[in-house]
Amino acid sequence: MVVFNHKASNGCTKSSSPSANISKTINLDQGDPTVFEPYWRKMGDKCTMVISASDSMSYFSDAGNLCWFLESKLGDSIRNLHREIGNAKSNGRHIVVGTGSTQLYQAALYALSSSPDRTHPISVVSAAPYYSQYQEETDYLRSGLYKWAGDAYTFDKEEDGNSNYIEVVNSPSNPDGSIREAVVKRTGGKLIHDLAYYWPQYTPITRLADHDIMLFTFSKCTGHAGSRIGWALVKDTEVAKKMIKFIELNSIGVSKESQLRAAMILGTLSDNSYRNFNSNKPADNFFEYSQCLLAERWKKLREVVKRNRLFILPDYPLEYCNFTGKFTQSHPAFAWLKCKEEDVDCEKLIKAHKVMVRGGMRFGAEKKYVRVSMLSSEGVFNLFLQRLSAIKGNFN
Amino acid sequence: MVVFNHKASNGCTKSSSPSANISKTINLDQGDPTVFEPYWRKMGDKCTMVISASDSMSYFSDAGNLCWFLESKLGDSIRNLHREIGNAKSNGRHIVVGTGSTQLYQAALYALSSSPDRTHPISVVSAAPYYSQYQEETDYLRSGLYKWAGDAYTFDKEEDGNSNYIEVVNSPSNPDGSIREAVVKRTGGKLIHDLAYYWPQYTPITRLADHDIMLFTFSKCTGHAGSRIGWALVKDTEVAKKMIKFIELNSIGVSKESQLRAAMILGTLSDNSYRNFNSNKPADNFFEYSQCLLAERWKKLREVVKRNRLFILPDYPLEYCNFTGKFTQSHPAFAWLKCKEEDVDCEKLIKAHKVMVRGGMRFGAEKKYVRVSMLSSEGVFNLFLQRLSAIKGNFN
Repeated sequence: MVVFNHKASNGCTKSSSPSANISKTINLDQGDPTVFEPYWRKMGDKCTMVISASDSMSYFSDAGNLCWFLESKLGDSIRNLHREIGNAKSNGRHIVVGTGSTQLYQAALYALSSSPDRTHPISVVSAAPYYSQYQEETDYLRSGLYKWAGDAYTFDKEEDGNSNYIEVVNSPSNPDGSIREAVVKRTGGKLIHDLAYYWPQYTPITRLADHDIMLFTFSKCTGHAGSRIGWALVKDTEVAKKMIKFIELNSIGVSKESQLRAAMILGTLSDNSYRNFNSNKPADNFFEYSQCLLAERWKKLREVVKRNRLFILPDYPLEYCNFTGKFTQSHPAFAWLKCKEEDVDCEKLIKAHKVMVRGGMRFGAEKKYVRVSMLSSEGVFNLFLQRLSAIKGNFN
Repeated sequence: MVVFNHKASNGCTKSSSPSANISKTINLDQGDPTVFEPYWRKMGDKCTMVISASDSMSYFSDAGNLCWFLESKLGDSIRNLHREIGNAKSNGRHIVVGTGSTQLYQAALYALSSSPDRTHPISVVSAAPYYSQYQEETDYLRSGLYKWAGDAYTFDKEEDGNSNYIEVVNSPSNPDGSIREAVVKRTGGKLIHDLAYYWPQYTPITRLADHDIMLFTFSKCTGHAGSRIGWALVKDTEVAKKMIKFIELNSIGVSKESQLRAAMILGTLSDNSYRNFNSNKPADNFFEYSQCLLAERWKKLREVVKRNRLFILPDYPLEYCNFTGKFTQSHPAFAWLKCKEEDVDCEKLIKAHKVMVRGGMRFGAEKKYVRVSMLSSEGVFNLFLQRLSAIKGNFN
């Protein structure tokens, strides 16, 4: 149980866990964003949703919209939020809602590859280290439309015999937090921009993104992973239509309850996301609160890493954030930790200290890397720091 | 707007539409179950869900359960309801929740076909007339694991070169309401039982179903199509694990909001589904109410069909329903209407009278058949009867 009860010295309101279970293995393998829960608990009834038994029973949300299963209130909240944050162009773009951005990733693959005259699957690539789930999400059904082709840096489309390809650009990147651009850059290439982490708490907002297909998710924006709500901003009408067709065939639309709740919560965020970063007020703005919290966590992690001298963390440049009006660094949702010593299985090493993390090989990288979630509850995060501190050198 | 305000002469509480738009084309192509909305409106606050901003934020519902994304309250409500209705054995079965039974159908295909040594796709068949979406849901990704092979009655697995197959048994059948059993019945066959309509309002409950994989959906049980909640009752642990894996890869679980709402509403149903069918009380039991409503609709439809002499409707046997303790006929969610005259395109004929229906060819049947939803609002249903009455013979 996380208790929301005190303020940190720097003005961040934060949470703590009264009693941490010191013997149990902690799970930082997934990116379950429970770090944000205390903020939403503090909101009390402000974002409470009430839904009666006869509400939203139909398959249809808005029969007149291309995306007939999108709740119009959610569409409005999404556009308002992007306008307020300045992270992506949503005006003049189709919004396609999905059961998380996972479903939308697959909808985008389908939209970019399905064609009656396709004779062999199109190659799907992403620059390594890439999100560990892309490969399995692409290949689990052995589709004849698309297939995973690995690291974009080493992709040779001529050798592959394909006339085109799909490149997934994940920026900021999961796992390493870096800002990415397309790598392959050849004629016939199609791009999916996975911008799940392009929000001010994780990275400075340096420009208004405006790509063909941009994926976002409620999970990483506010921490509401359980709602399974994602959205795509799509330029081309035919691509949007095919993505909608995919979601119709895959699940006949998307939960209305989750959409309505997301509409309310995202709506509150843009009402509430006034730029008070320079004021001395306590952090009641969600993005300010969460940026502050992640900055503190990163500071603590860097201290531990510096002390025990066994690992390396990426450095991020100081950049001007258009949203906060300040120069800030990235504070990614994951730490991409590298063992200094060669030939070390970093996942195994850290697991031996009762911390579950995800090994580098899953991301198309070496085993000396691991990805560690920075989004756990406060108690679990503190246990992680303790256990990381306890790891000693000469472990080969 | 449907208004819930009066009682029918036979004791069914029912709804009416005050003013029907007489010029607009009505849509009875989909099976949008808005017929049940007035019942749930009458429930007032009894099934109102309240969810605060900090509830259910995690990906996980129950990390200790095989189906880690299933809300345990929903699991309980599902088991209680099946126990109360007596339609399917749920004790000792795994419950896998899905984004509607559509996602679970695909999860079941994956579970029954994915194997490292699979060299060619397994054939998927269903007895014609079969649910119109099976084909497209099976084939849209051109999976190397499974492929649609059409009507189970004409399937020749020897010729197909496959050592096994999957048969989907949809009972009661969408579109024709008949009770179905497996047709192919050969060694190596695997079965998926789609029991979406095996509820007392549609058909007498004649036995406790106990098959390997049984699919159900909240949409057709209570009319909450917008929630996108389905569930599978699964015997085999390895099959359940693979279905769970599919849903993890497809959408990382299922909306918590929808699951919690379904848990509450299904929970109320089993509290409320006491067998008062023989009493003189007004119909406050959901299944009694909805059975009564559908019986009335079928009676009216049969009268119109009898009068205009152009169509034939299926007959259903009188059977003893274990739940109601009465002999009743089926009153399916769809009318499977057949034109008496040969070579008539029945869909085209009815469309010309401003009623959108789904043509027989979509179900692997002839064009003289159409499927008409019986689950529309009262106003739309009455318009349908008027328009059907107006169709005259000699239309070739």
